[in-house]
Amino acid sequence: MTDIKVLFLCGGVGKRMLPLTEDKFLFKFLGKTLLEHQLGLVYKAGLKKVIIVCHPQNEEKIRQITDSSPGISFEYVRQEKPLGIAHALDSAAHLLDSELIIVNPNDIFEMTAYNALLAGQGKNKADSCILGYKVKEYFPGGYLVTNERGELTDIVEKPGEGNEPSDMVNLLVHYHRDPKALLKEISGVQTNCDDAYEQALGAMCKNGQHIRVVPYSDGWQAIKYPWQILNRVRYYLDRAEGHISPTAQISDRAVIDGKVIIEDNARVLENAVVRGPVYIGPGTIVGNSTLIRDYSHLGANCVVGFGTEIKGSYIDAGCWFHMNYIGDSVVGEHCNFGAGTITANWLFSEKNIRVRVNHKPLDTGLNKLGAIIGNNCRTGINVSLMPGVKISPGSIIQPSTVLTKDI
Amino acid sequence: MTDIKVLFLCGGVGKRMLPLTEDKFLFKFLGKTLLEHQLGLVYKAGLKKVIIVCHPQNEEKIRQITDSSPGISFEYVRQEKPLGIAHALDSAAHLLDSELIIVNPNDIFEMTAYNALLAGQGKNKADSCILGYKVKEYFPGGYLVTNERGELTDIVEKPGEGNEPSDMVNLLVHYHRDPKALLKEISGVQTNCDDAYEQALGAMCKNGQHIRVVPYSDGWQAIKYPWQILNRVRYYLDRAEGHISPTAQISDRAVIDGKVIIEDNARVLENAVVRGPVYIGPGTIVGNSTLIRDYSHLGANCVVGFGTEIKGSYIDAGCWFHMNYIGDSVVGEHCNFGAGTITANWLFSEKNIRVRVNHKPLDTGLNKLGAIIGNNCRTGINVSLMPGVKISPGSIIQPSTVLTKDI
Amino acid sequence: MTDIKVLFLCGGVGKRMLPLTEDKFLFKFLGKTLLEHQLGLVYKAGLKKVIIVCHPQNEEKIRQITDSSPGISFEYVRQEKPLGIAHALDSAAHLLDSELIIVNPNDIFEMTAYNALLAGQGKNKADSCILGYKVKEYFPGGYLVTNERGELTDIVEKPGEGNEPSDMVNLLVHYHRDPKALLKEISGVQTNCDDAYEQALGAMCKNGQHIRVVPYSDGWQAIKYPWQILNRVRYYLDRAEGHISPTAQISDRAVIDGKVIIEDNARVLENAVVRGPVYIGPGTIVGNSTLIRDYSHLGANCVVGFGTEIKGSYIDAGCWFHMNYIGDSVVGEHCNFGAGTITANWLFSEKNIRVRVNHKPLDTGLNKLGAIIGNNCRTGINVSLMPGVKISPGSIIQPSTVLTKDI
Repeated sequence: MTDIKVLFLCGGVGKRMLPLTEDKFLFKFLGKTLLEHQLGLVYKAGLKKVIIVCHPQNEEKIRQITDSSPGISFEYVRQEKPLGIAHALDSAAHLLDSELIIVNPNDIFEMTAYNALLAGQGKNKADSCILGYKVKEYFPGGYLVTNERGELTDIVEKPGEGNEPSDMVNLLVHYHRDPKALLKEISGVQTNCDDAYEQALGAMCKNGQHIRVVPYSDGWQAIKYPWQILNRVRYYLDRAEGHISPTAQISDRAVIDGKVIIEDNARVLENAVVRGPVYIGPGTIVGNSTLIRDYSHLGANCVVGFGTEIKGSYIDAGCWFHMNYIGDSVVGEHCNFGAGTITANWLFSEKNIRVRVNHKPLDTGLNKLGAIIGNNCRTGINVSLMPGVKISPGSIIQPSTVLTKDI
Repeated sequence: MTDIKVLFLCGGVGKRMLPLTEDKFLFKFLGKTLLEHQLGLVYKAGLKKVIIVCHPQNEEKIRQITDSSPGISFEYVRQEKPLGIAHALDSAAHLLDSELIIVNPNDIFEMTAYNALLAGQGKNKADSCILGYKVKEYFPGGYLVTNERGELTDIVEKPGEGNEPSDMVNLLVHYHRDPKALLKEISGVQTNCDDAYEQALGAMCKNGQHIRVVPYSDGWQAIKYPWQILNRVRYYLDRAEGHISPTAQISDRAVIDGKVIIEDNARVLENAVVRGPVYIGPGTIVGNSTLIRDYSHLGANCVVGFGTEIKGSYIDAGCWFHMNYIGDSVVGEHCNFGAGTITANWLFSEKNIRVRVNHKPLDTGLNKLGAIIGNNCRTGINVSLMPGVKISPGSIIQPSTVLTKDI
Repeated sequence: MTDIKVLFLCGGVGKRMLPLTEDKFLFKFLGKTLLEHQLGLVYKAGLKKVIIVCHPQNEEKIRQITDSSPGISFEYVRQEKPLGIAHALDSAAHLLDSELIIVNPNDIFEMTAYNALLAGQGKNKADSCILGYKVKEYFPGGYLVTNERGELTDIVEKPGEGNEPSDMVNLLVHYHRDPKALLKEISGVQTNCDDAYEQALGAMCKNGQHIRVVPYSDGWQAIKYPWQILNRVRYYLDRAEGHISPTAQISDRAVIDGKVIIEDNARVLENAVVRGPVYIGPGTIVGNSTLIRDYSHLGANCVVGFGTEIKGSYIDAGCWFHMNYIGDSVVGEHCNFGAGTITANWLFSEKNIRVRVNHKPLDTGLNKLGAIIGNNCRTGINVSLMPGVKISPGSIIQPSTVLTKDI
């Protein structure tokens, strides 16, 4: 088993995560990037070799992370253009010399996913083995159709609600005993179309290869849109233990309540209330007369100034707040909010909030959602940010502005 | 005495209380409607029979309240149109079969009012007996003129300051030994004019009936205008004892100071300050870093969110606050205030605040007054409400609005 | 030595301090006017006689202060027009009957300045003796040129950076053994031009009089512009001891941290944080959920209402705050800030803030500066004050205004 290589698909690029980075695996949760969380699972599953398919812009950042992952050996390959999974595999063809597990590191799943996959491939030596996630309601993914032996016969992409051919959707944790066979099938399809890899799987089925579908129903979260970062905060906080670093300084006039993680050298000042589940990153200062609550996640070296409430929000490193209300929002690195800047986080209509993605309004399914703010933004004093508004990296919002549209 | 019937005039309708309900006796103070407070006095005075003259829209609500008043038997009658006291008595004619006390339940008075009235009628068996409230300065009511035996000879309505014929104004707690005689006099006047009842009293005098005027100088408060609700809060809080329900949860990091009433299942969180006289209704939550003070009265199931100050205000049930300042304001049920909504409560000129009533500006006599807000209103974030502004039920105020006019 | 008279130049008038008073020596620091601080030094130096040159508008205020200065005898003289030092000396000519020390009371310096001056004049009986402040970088003042015996040969006004003829600038603490001789020289120059006094000194040198320059390098602060008041707060707080008056009422739920001075009858309420260096004047109330920090100086009888933060600001007596952020600002007497009024105190560009002085923008050298506000101003609710804005005495700022220009 230790010869199996795990291939991480880190070469994709898109616009759905704007104004945040598309490299979702670089977001930090509980002090570690999503990528590190994933590598941790790999290591725990007893796997020791990882291929990372990067794109030219993120290779450096990825190497910085993987450099500090003991117990795993890495190979890197650049995918020069973001042309999908099949293209990524093609780019890595020279490294695919042993059994292979393909993983989308932007998805979160449990250790049991690897366990199920490895058990599934072992049982009767299937040629390939893929996870099928049991869904209870419609999900816009690829539905897996199987025969009576539980082997894949077809993948139906986004059939539409009511037309689902099964109750299992494709979860990209895929084992292939012979990657060369897979590459051969890929060579028969257009590698630069979106679903070339799925087409290749379909062709493998038709050519008589056995692709076992292993049912999986533990935790799984896909992430496509920026507001889904907030689900992920819940995911990790729900699974974490509360912990306060011995180097953190907590005033005895501060209140720490519920499951709270406070990292090294963080400070919580007098009259602050931190009501978990909440994560406070290293070096972050929670100031006087503040409230941090309800699945909020603050990165490193933030300063939450006097009179600020942060609720249900993901805040990246190095942000400064002062007399703000930040509710149900996602905030990039090094943002600075003027005193009196407030995020509105629900509509008078109480309807779901819509966010423009690729120029089209999209129902987020959430009736509480604040702002989505890229890195290095600054707001003036008394600014009002309307629900679901997106702010591009480096933006400056003038004082007393009511921001109703994306900028 | 237990045969005396007390008739409550609950059939009036007007517009002076807009945007609040005209049924002033339905406002709750210290957890009980004004009507219940009045019925409590009736019961303590040893009276057991009550006739309630309703209008079609409030009968149901009144019955819900009276259903839970033990020890009193009720009769109801509908006054189909709000045509004044005489018309109300006419509507109830079939029930007026014993001695009668007529009461305006919108006025507040002390138990001693009943005591004085009952003692007065008993002394030398006057035909009628009415309370005369000793005033020290001009009050726009009906002034009572009496002869040397203390019997009414005339009622002069709103004589104007300096023209007062006496120092006693008519307080509508009136005893009539023979209501039939009263009804007969009423039949001689236009029953649908505003002062038909007072005209009938005048006619009784002229016809030789003896209407004793009993001086009364204990507590009395009329209520005509919405801001007078705030006086009433003072009235009841000044007379109440402090009390914290054993089911209330008060953080040991909260401050409770002065005369404070906190009802069942209310919660006061860390770093909240409740500085009495203050009433906190059942189920209401007073959040972190808040301040409730100076004759504030919060109804049931409110949520006073982080960073809010409420001062000198009447807040009805089910209101939500968040980073607000609500000062000297009257707020109806189920209002929701966006973060940063602030009421201004004084003028730069420091003059008395004027409020439009029936389309005319009226001097409230108050140099501190915030907003008057009907039921089910919502404000956006960073809204500014100017002093004395009135907001109709169900209004939505857009974010960052400066509201200078009634809506 | 006790015959030496100290002459205080209090007759100047200008516009550089607008909207604050030009009589800088009337600003109070740590409960005493700058003038009192200066008189304290005089007294400690063993000097007993003071001449004060006033202008017609400030004589009364000055006398009120000097009336309560024990141990010093005062003579007053009016300078009818603000025509400079030479003119001031001319106005006081009839009082200049003994050795003289001329002092600009708007400058701050240490006791050691007097010590150095008195030692300097005593050593070899120089005719005059003036302080030369050792500078390390260019300062736009008068540079002192001396001969090998340390005697003045020339004064070069504002030579421009790089052209300095020495490293000593003229500090106006000047001793003259024979004021009559000085007056005679003055009579030879145009007394109403700005540098007539310096011209007279130059003439004295040429006429063979010996003007000793005494080097001085302890504390010194000139004050020309309103924002320099903030430096002065630092100066005095850095040199003061922390102290809490026994008549001050400090809640045991308040936090007092660092070097804090709290004067008589001040009150600090629950959940307030006062983080020194900070000065709280007599009778001032620091309310619930507030923060006062970082070299803030609050005068007498202020009220810092709920939810306010004051940082690095000078606040004169009788100001009221409520849910404000006042940062790096100078605020005159009796100002009143509506809830939600916020001072912005830095530019998005992070550049130095420019303030208009005499209609020209001037670089303050500060990248953190709030507002400069004259006496008796009022702001409405939700007002935004931009960095470096100046507000004239008695101004009213309407609610929700964004003030970007001086008014």
